[in-house]
Amino acid sequence: MSASTSDLRVLKVGICGYGTVGRGTHDLLVKNESTIARRLDCIHLTVTHVASRSLSGTVFGVGKWSTDPIEVVNDPEVDIVVEAIGGLGTAFEVVKKALSAKKNVVTANKALIATHGNELVNLASENGVRLLFESAVAGGIPILKCLREGLAANNINWLAGIINGTGNYILTEMGNRQRLFSEVLREAQALGYAEADPSFDVEGTDAAHKLAIMASIAFGMPLAFDKTYIEGISSLELDDIKYANELGYCIKHLGIARLSDQRVQMRVHPSLISSDELLASVDGVGNAVVVNADPIGSTLYSGPGAGAEATASAVVADLIDLARSPRSISQAHIVPSLGFSRLVTDFEILDIDKIESEYYLRINVEDHVGVMANITGLMEKFEISIDAVIQKEKSKNCVQIVILTQMCVEQVLNSVIAEIENLKSVRSSVVRIRVASFE
Amino acid sequence: MSASTSDLRVLKVGICGYGTVGRGTHDLLVKNESTIARRLDCIHLTVTHVASRSLSGTVFGVGKWSTDPIEVVNDPEVDIVVEAIGGLGTAFEVVKKALSAKKNVVTANKALIATHGNELVNLASENGVRLLFESAVAGGIPILKCLREGLAANNINWLAGIINGTGNYILTEMGNRQRLFSEVLREAQALGYAEADPSFDVEGTDAAHKLAIMASIAFGMPLAFDKTYIEGISSLELDDIKYANELGYCIKHLGIARLSDQRVQMRVHPSLISSDELLASVDGVGNAVVVNADPIGSTLYSGPGAGAEATASAVVADLIDLARSPRSISQAHIVPSLGFSRLVTDFEILDIDKIESEYYLRINVEDHVGVMANITGLMEKFEISIDAVIQKEKSKNCVQIVILTQMCVEQVLNSVIAEIENLKSVRSSVVRIRVASFE
Repeated sequence: MSASTSDLRVLKVGICGYGTVGRGTHDLLVKNESTIARRLDCIHLTVTHVASRSLSGTVFGVGKWSTDPIEVVNDPEVDIVVEAIGGLGTAFEVVKKALSAKKNVVTANKALIATHGNELVNLASENGVRLLFESAVAGGIPILKCLREGLAANNINWLAGIINGTGNYILTEMGNRQRLFSEVLREAQALGYAEADPSFDVEGTDAAHKLAIMASIAFGMPLAFDKTYIEGISSLELDDIKYANELGYCIKHLGIARLSDQRVQMRVHPSLISSDELLASVDGVGNAVVVNADPIGSTLYSGPGAGAEATASAVVADLIDLARSPRSISQAHIVPSLGFSRLVTDFEILDIDKIESEYYLRINVEDHVGVMANITGLMEKFEISIDAVIQKEKSKNCVQIVILTQMCVEQVLNSVIAEIENLKSVRSSVVRIRVASFE
Repeated sequence: MSASTSDLRVLKVGICGYGTVGRGTHDLLVKNESTIARRLDCIHLTVTHVASRSLSGTVFGVGKWSTDPIEVVNDPEVDIVVEAIGGLGTAFEVVKKALSAKKNVVTANKALIATHGNELVNLASENGVRLLFESAVAGGIPILKCLREGLAANNINWLAGIINGTGNYILTEMGNRQRLFSEVLREAQALGYAEADPSFDVEGTDAAHKLAIMASIAFGMPLAFDKTYIEGISSLELDDIKYANELGYCIKHLGIARLSDQRVQMRVHPSLISSDELLASVDGVGNAVVVNADPIGSTLYSGPGAGAEATASAVVADLIDLARSPRSISQAHIVPSLGFSRLVTDFEILDIDKIESEYYLRINVEDHVGVMANITGLMEKFEISIDAVIQKEKSKNCVQIVILTQMCVEQVLNSVIAEIENLKSVRSSVVRIRVASFE
């Protein structure tokens, strides 16, 4: 199986955007050239054209450079386009043009796929080319390949992931050292783990992009980012982390997708996880995804979720996959971008108040006789069973009642919370955190 | 992309052996038929011929059955052969005949691949067909796909895995409940987690088969099971598990493969793992593999490592991969069975006494003045640095000295141990357990 010179096929890669992702991809193709050559044998991947607004050609060590990424797409020599511009405007145009020009495309752009993925996947299919985006979810962890191929024999029931490293770093520090959110965030910004405007990470939009992509591939449905429920971690309080620990849980910012009875849940929010779960031990900037499927059961995939090197690892893995795909074969021989050839369009996506979950509640009350009875009485009225209760003295005349409920519908819980907040002795809004179920 | 009737291609699967793996594969193809059809669209996988020594045709619900597996191989209608016989004799013949007849083969048989894989992979390549064996390592976890494809852009530095569920169940029970090896083993046998003859699992042969397969794919070298160092868990004592815990470690039975400076280590033995490592939290019958690679860093893959359903999940994933491979494409478009097109034959495989490691030592001594000085003096003579020491009173006049060393060459450590065992006050053989490094 060794290559004679005549067999050698050179695949020319054009990179649009030369920031962290673009430069990282180029660097990796050069650095690990000999290993990649040993894997691919008769095929050589080489970067021949780079587009960047700001750098000059001599920096790249590649033949051509342009300031306009469309020139990379229009370059007849370029076989595969790597979109590393980011954002939605130019990146969207570049990917559309490249697919229309019948070029395979690799992108790390989770916002682009989550937002315009349905159109782009169709465009790729119509043009007989492929659109790959492994690096868009969980960095270097090959989670999309595992969902599409490794677990292809399974019906996927649910998945739950720590899919934002910044958020997980902040929660880990808050939990391990009892430090305030605002303080840890400032530190994370200083360390480069968090952006100057951190809302994309800590308010859950980034995680929701990734969740929408995983859910689509797991269940075989069109991307539905706009229907994902999103709740961030910026209002989490140290008390709740502490009480959760006492009850045998930790708090993580999870993306959860679940399919049951033809109905799909997609939600990003802080979640209590039993400390026995492997996912509870995933700390710092790491990412991890648990996938529960039938018949295999639960598998977990963890690793670095961000950074130039992890991202480049996944982008180049996609390039290697593309290098192995002959151009002339039919769609039936290609792994579909969204995992399934036939997507189900009519899964109902549940509103958050229709989901069922266990809940953690923290209620700030004046320490009067009968308050506990009032609260548990309301729970009973709405037929919500209680799994555990702890009571903590907060200050003079003020206690915190912490309750773990059994499974109930969120809408019903909302009604109870409203009635609890109307009690005279309840001092502030009830804190409510969902408990993640791993069954 | 929906299938018209004329596009539909039926791929006929023949199953040789109808025990746990064969029956599980057939059951899964039937049970998840609609999901698999949604993924594959124009291709239908169907079992048309089964060979089993003991069952009659009416049980299977398939067209043909034979008592001789060679009849499945010779059936001109069968496109893909699933070898689910196990062992080396008949299974080896069946796979050789199937590959020679230019049929793709899927097997779960780790012993077969570890022992005869080099010959079989070459035979597949010569015949232009594929030999896949995802289910041979870590059950349903798609670890081979991740090594071959997901991490394809990386140089893999090392991997370390809990790859025998029986052994991990026993160690978990010993550690969590301070129960003796022999007692837990009996229970595991009663629960069906361990075979009547458990030596294959607890003495490390099974793990070594899996390790050899992973190492070959990770580093791109021929299978070298016969050069794997193997040490079991049957002589592990509760004291060592307890002392390891006190030092911040737990003990797991690991398969470790490492490539550095063109030299490969492959070894299966009990290992101390820092309790901070995610791998330390993998308990019970679960499997998990950590892969450290450049540039991605460490990723971890965990899940069920055995059982009919996990195995069938991986076998059918291989069948789906084969269904997507057109017959007429060249080797360059196929992921090589061992991950690389060009295998390096001249990696030196290190003898165990050439490895470098940190070590846990337990020394039983008479409680005399100067014993500790004697021992630490010997360590100093051989330039072995000590990381931690604890001393435990075992009984009257007898103490246990527990030492964690820094990195040293095993051969040097062996010399120290020999001299320590010669000391008059040392009562029994020194217990030595390697510490797993995750750097």
